[in-house]
Amino acid sequence: MKWSRRHVLDTDDWSREEIEAVLETTGAMVEILQRPVRRAPPLRGKTVILFFAESSTRTRVSFELAAKALSADVTNITASGSSVEKGETLYDTVRTLQALGGDIVVMRHASSGAPYFVAERTDAAVINAGDGWHAHPTQGLLDAYTLRGALGDLKGKRIVIVGDVVHSRVARSDINTLAPLGATITLSGPPTLMPAAWRRGSLPPCVTYEPDLDRALEGADGVIALRLQKERQEGGLLPSLREYSHVWGLTEARVARMRPNAPVMHPGPMNEGVEIEAAVAHGARSLVETQVTNGVAVRMALLYLLVGTPSLEAS
Amino acid sequence: MKWSRRHVLDTDDWSREEIEAVLETTGAMVEILQRPVRRAPPLRGKTVILFFAESSTRTRVSFELAAKALSADVTNITASGSSVEKGETLYDTVRTLQALGGDIVVMRHASSGAPYFVAERTDAAVINAGDGWHAHPTQGLLDAYTLRGALGDLKGKRIVIVGDVVHSRVARSDINTLAPLGATITLSGPPTLMPAAWRRGSLPPCVTYEPDLDRALEGADGVIALRLQKERQEGGLLPSLREYSHVWGLTEARVARMRPNAPVMHPGPMNEGVEIEAAVAHGARSLVETQVTNGVAVRMALLYLLVGTPSLEAS
Amino acid sequence: MKWSRRHVLDTDDWSREEIEAVLETTGAMVEILQRPVRRAPPLRGKTVILFFAESSTRTRVSFELAAKALSADVTNITASGSSVEKGETLYDTVRTLQALGGDIVVMRHASSGAPYFVAERTDAAVINAGDGWHAHPTQGLLDAYTLRGALGDLKGKRIVIVGDVVHSRVARSDINTLAPLGATITLSGPPTLMPAAWRRGSLPPCVTYEPDLDRALEGADGVIALRLQKERQEGGLLPSLREYSHVWGLTEARVARMRPNAPVMHPGPMNEGVEIEAAVAHGARSLVETQVTNGVAVRMALLYLLVGTPSLEAS
Repeated sequence: MKWSRRHVLDTDDWSREEIEAVLETTGAMVEILQRPVRRAPPLRGKTVILFFAESSTRTRVSFELAAKALSADVTNITASGSSVEKGETLYDTVRTLQALGGDIVVMRHASSGAPYFVAERTDAAVINAGDGWHAHPTQGLLDAYTLRGALGDLKGKRIVIVGDVVHSRVARSDINTLAPLGATITLSGPPTLMPAAWRRGSLPPCVTYEPDLDRALEGADGVIALRLQKERQEGGLLPSLREYSHVWGLTEARVARMRPNAPVMHPGPMNEGVEIEAAVAHGARSLVETQVTNGVAVRMALLYLLVGTPSLEAS
Repeated sequence: MKWSRRHVLDTDDWSREEIEAVLETTGAMVEILQRPVRRAPPLRGKTVILFFAESSTRTRVSFELAAKALSADVTNITASGSSVEKGETLYDTVRTLQALGGDIVVMRHASSGAPYFVAERTDAAVINAGDGWHAHPTQGLLDAYTLRGALGDLKGKRIVIVGDVVHSRVARSDINTLAPLGATITLSGPPTLMPAAWRRGSLPPCVTYEPDLDRALEGADGVIALRLQKERQEGGLLPSLREYSHVWGLTEARVARMRPNAPVMHPGPMNEGVEIEAAVAHGARSLVETQVTNGVAVRMALLYLLVGTPSLEAS
Repeated sequence: MKWSRRHVLDTDDWSREEIEAVLETTGAMVEILQRPVRRAPPLRGKTVILFFAESSTRTRVSFELAAKALSADVTNITASGSSVEKGETLYDTVRTLQALGGDIVVMRHASSGAPYFVAERTDAAVINAGDGWHAHPTQGLLDAYTLRGALGDLKGKRIVIVGDVVHSRVARSDINTLAPLGATITLSGPPTLMPAAWRRGSLPPCVTYEPDLDRALEGADGVIALRLQKERQEGGLLPSLREYSHVWGLTEARVARMRPNAPVMHPGPMNEGVEIEAAVAHGARSLVETQVTNGVAVRMALLYLLVGTPSLEAS
């Protein structure tokens, strides 16, 4: 085990070995979740504070159930109704969460970089549950775990990520996790929704951009559709949702261009009929629900690696 | 024990034996709640998701405390701040709750029938905690348990239900639970707040409609006052709250028309001074608080019957 | 142990012995919080209902973590989305909370005196977590515990409380707790923000008013800055925030007028740059975070004294 991190802020500087350590631990957590009594004691007496300054269902609940499965005490703080509304600085809020006894602060925040700011100023372990357009490392890790479950070793596998890449912390975290595991990534989607430098060809290693989705999918090993924020249209970055759906939506005909059984993924919540057809979202290739299930296990793994005591016996 | 249901959606097709099974199990749960340490282990390691797309205090908290008393992990999801707001379909939300590990989804929803839709599409057990005007089966069961505690066998007993019947899932569920146990039901209230067919005399078996509340109460064995949604007045279905209260409100004089000690019930929250006088709400006949206490035990019984392991030992 | 109270509503009628009993028990709770597994069993099977009709982060979470550390079941009720919104009376809400099985109701309410009203009408133990401008007894107790940790015996110590005293339940509760322990209190702040009688010199025993903050701080043993509600300015009670900050804000120069190492406290959330400079809020004298940590222990002590079973063994 090569784990020595105090926080999970982004995977952009993680080694392959660190990613592997999380994925391996995730496997042990999946085993706990398959027990008749889905409980283990390694976080007993530890406090996990879920500080979600942006709304979320699946990520918040996923962390909550992960923490409870490891016997932690969990408390929820949302921006509305909290001292954040009363004008307290983020610094003071976080110092308070630590002083209250928080061992881990899981935070979602609209500002890119907020978890870094927090991590430097607290003794609690900080997990980034999504910061602005920047990073969503637990999504990247659960996507890697899910793709490995479907495809085995990711070395040489080609994964398409399609949609609103420029505003997507999921896209960034997927790239940062999949590339070290040996995958190549083909981005697709409207040029207006690509980072300007990437659109002009100056891409990270292992990443290419192919605006034509049909070509991008041809022979691919898997595809991840990103959620389209409908408000992007109002911003003039899209002609219309119908046009978007027509050109970049995942249809059955399109996903059939990939290799046989190549999986379809989506971080959710899905806009069915926009970035993905209902038949694809719930079709045989879809791993959308597997992603959700694996998300709980990945988050258990991180909580465990950050502050858990060794024992995983049944409690 | 004749229990074989996977969900609790409505009691309209339950046999007397099934209702009896729940009431008997409720008695065992009441015993747990009277222990010095009110805890038993049968849902240890199980996850109960409370998905309340309509606001609620007593029902939500009742389920939460019921689940915790049986050692389940519980998580709350409300419509505001959830992916429901982000345009996700109900189908996708529910598939996600199951994928997160939910063994039981307790749901309240504004749309009649929503829990049926969900139950057909998930492996989790679904409990309807109120769907639109349609059904509120746990309220019907707790009312039956409470009336039996006060009156013994309900065979031949006559219970009055007064108020806004047409919009009331409570009225429908009370009828569906009390009738199989042998009770007869007299409905009362303004004709504008009765289902059209019932107002015209085409009523379910064991049910009659008597618009004059004084006559309805004469010699009755108990009365259940329904909550008046004040917005009904704006809809033109009521002349005024004062008029409603004058004609159909439960006063001390009126409840005295019932048999000695015949109980008064209300599902809460009460509009005191509208459908019920404060003196009646808190008088000697009132079982309003007993209903709340029994509600926890009934919900424990259902959680236990749906997914519990056998042991009810102290943990 | 001289403990015989059923509720914690205000400390204005507490004896020195009662305050000492809580502070001593708090010490035992601090010891539990320093264990590797921060858990003890004395509230196992008990239900603590957190009924916050006004928003709060630190106080609500503090009670929640305190209750969980003692193994209680905890449920949260907020005014929004609750039956309070549906027009239920406070009396009915509280009777319902008790009927649901609440052993302790922790309540915050905008109306001064609301917890008294509730305590008279329920068998549950009631803890006032702040009622209007009236009292915030757990804040007073945690401030006393924190000051004693810093200063030892408070007999003869002089503590300055500066700010919006008239609207401050914290000021009132601090006075009610510190005075019986032998401290004297110097109030400071704008005359418009002092109770009229106090401003005119008719002060409680052990309390004086000194509008000039520099003079008040001279040789003091500690200072508590109160949170300035910014809306007071709109009400015409303040010339401007800048003026307030200039005249009554805690600066490094000002706090240096106190005795060496005399501590600086604030109940939070802080308006940094208004009633307290950032450098003071986070400086060497600041006990702001210690207050938060002690708050959990004080609340544990009260929960334990009100309904706990004796054992504090590790569970």
